[in-house]
Amino acid sequence: MRAICLTGSRLRFQPDRPDPEPAGREALVRVFLAGICSTDLELVKGYMGFEGVLGHEFVGVVERAEDPDWVGRRVVSTINLANPSGPGFAEYGEQHDPARTVLGILGHDGAMADRVKLPLRNLRCIPKAVPDRAAVFTEPLAAALRIAEQIPVRPSDPVAVVGPGRLGMLIGQTLSLGGAAVTMLGRSDASLELARRWGLQSQLVDEADDDSQRLVVESTGNAEGLRHALRIIKPLGTLVMKSTYAEAPAVDLTNIVVGELTVIGSRCGPFEPALRLLARGQVDVESLIDAEYPIERGLEAFEHAARPGVRKVLLSL
Amino acid sequence: MRAICLTGSRLRFQPDRPDPEPAGREALVRVFLAGICSTDLELVKGYMGFEGVLGHEFVGVVERAEDPDWVGRRVVSTINLANPSGPGFAEYGEQHDPARTVLGILGHDGAMADRVKLPLRNLRCIPKAVPDRAAVFTEPLAAALRIAEQIPVRPSDPVAVVGPGRLGMLIGQTLSLGGAAVTMLGRSDASLELARRWGLQSQLVDEADDDSQRLVVESTGNAEGLRHALRIIKPLGTLVMKSTYAEAPAVDLTNIVVGELTVIGSRCGPFEPALRLLARGQVDVESLIDAEYPIERGLEAFEHAARPGVRKVLLSL
Repeated sequence: MRAICLTGSRLRFQPDRPDPEPAGREALVRVFLAGICSTDLELVKGYMGFEGVLGHEFVGVVERAEDPDWVGRRVVSTINLANPSGPGFAEYGEQHDPARTVLGILGHDGAMADRVKLPLRNLRCIPKAVPDRAAVFTEPLAAALRIAEQIPVRPSDPVAVVGPGRLGMLIGQTLSLGGAAVTMLGRSDASLELARRWGLQSQLVDEADDDSQRLVVESTGNAEGLRHALRIIKPLGTLVMKSTYAEAPAVDLTNIVVGELTVIGSRCGPFEPALRLLARGQVDVESLIDAEYPIERGLEAFEHAARPGVRKVLLSL
Repeated sequence: MRAICLTGSRLRFQPDRPDPEPAGREALVRVFLAGICSTDLELVKGYMGFEGVLGHEFVGVVERAEDPDWVGRRVVSTINLANPSGPGFAEYGEQHDPARTVLGILGHDGAMADRVKLPLRNLRCIPKAVPDRAAVFTEPLAAALRIAEQIPVRPSDPVAVVGPGRLGMLIGQTLSLGGAAVTMLGRSDASLELARRWGLQSQLVDEADDDSQRLVVESTGNAEGLRHALRIIKPLGTLVMKSTYAEAPAVDLTNIVVGELTVIGSRCGPFEPALRLLARGQVDVESLIDAEYPIERGLEAFEHAARPGVRKVLLSL
């Protein structure tokens, strides 16, 4: 099968990788579409030391499974693959089981390939109303929704989202659907154009006042973004961190202590509400797509995705 | 008067600094004893860019005040000096009012001097049962108690305190008074000797397992301590940050996001319960005192306080 792989920390297109072999309660899924996310770009830079097939955002159809009811179903998949009878699962749940693998990130080949094997328990059926180009956003949309699973975001809360990128724009949309007054903060006017089109408030991050925001979401993926987030937050404020970094950023953390901030790390979220919002058409994801490449041109697609200002680049199979 | 000052970012002993001039609702306090804290050592390295008399931990007696009831009273003082009729006070309270000054740290001369001026509203009378050498610990003991004001620490909670230093040992003591199973983590056997004497569990931090602690307090003041704290904490755990740093530490913050940690910045705490614990003799502070120097030898005292393994060094006046 065709696949985009990291081998020896080099990104490659492989035209003839062997198909995965599902076992027991695993399904074999044929992939239609996969998305490139910031985590993929960090993995290419060496984050997690991952080797294998990349890709954890995808849409596909079940080709083979022990339970015939699954065959032919259009699916997405949650990405933390854990054994429910293991001890780590009982203590931490699926998302934080220390023994888990993570699709295309840690110990399990991902979905930028013709086929991917996945435990049935991780699959979610896609409602008919959701086209493939929307369903491929289920995983990042769930990650955006995770914030409201962790902290109360009240309709009257002003929220600043630093980083109007592929994930930040989903965060801005979902928080504003709950009623919150969202301001998107970006490095350039061009980066804020879509936020304006969506009716979200926006501002150049350099022009945002010090100590001016009670609730800040950091979704830039770079140290400069984190520095701005810590600069603009008010004393006793809450900072939600959504970015992972390949390198340790040198950031002055004094404000966390002196301002007695609460910092919340936030990662994977719930798929069911993400699929509900997509089925109802309440989230604009189409505007986030910059390009779609056939998998053979995957390396070009990664270069495209890494350019400043680019949001979602898809791979079709 | 005699004073220990930072001028032109150099630490000096000044034998003839003019007395402060209290105005309105301020008192003039004669100082008996002052403590050197890690924040003072960071100020000397350039933290906050402070210039003036150092010192925010002290015991003294009111010499002059508009209200004669105050004169002759033995007092300590909270360190955030704010105007209760200002707008920042209404929004953030005394501790985080952006317009506040901070005793010996920001815009207000401190207490390593024969006399210090302080707003009456910040003074707290010291119960008779508390000797000077205990009362001088009121401020750091309050800072230790702040943790339980911010997050629930249940009697059945295991807690790891990284850094068995001057503040860490007060944190370990206060949390264990509440019933929690405290483990002190230090760099050397010598650093853990007092913890053992107090009946607290202890362990070399290098030997503490990855992902093993649900609740971690970081009180080392250095990047290595923060790295250990982020290493030993379990997924979904809570990290309380008590240290301020003169320099931005380069620390891999990925675990905050991937482990979905909650990070709580924690600074100044409540004086009343600190004085209650000291009056009842429930906290051993005497064992934390390594040396007492007359203020004329203040520079020597600062050198002593900066040595590894040294806890509290006092200045007498």
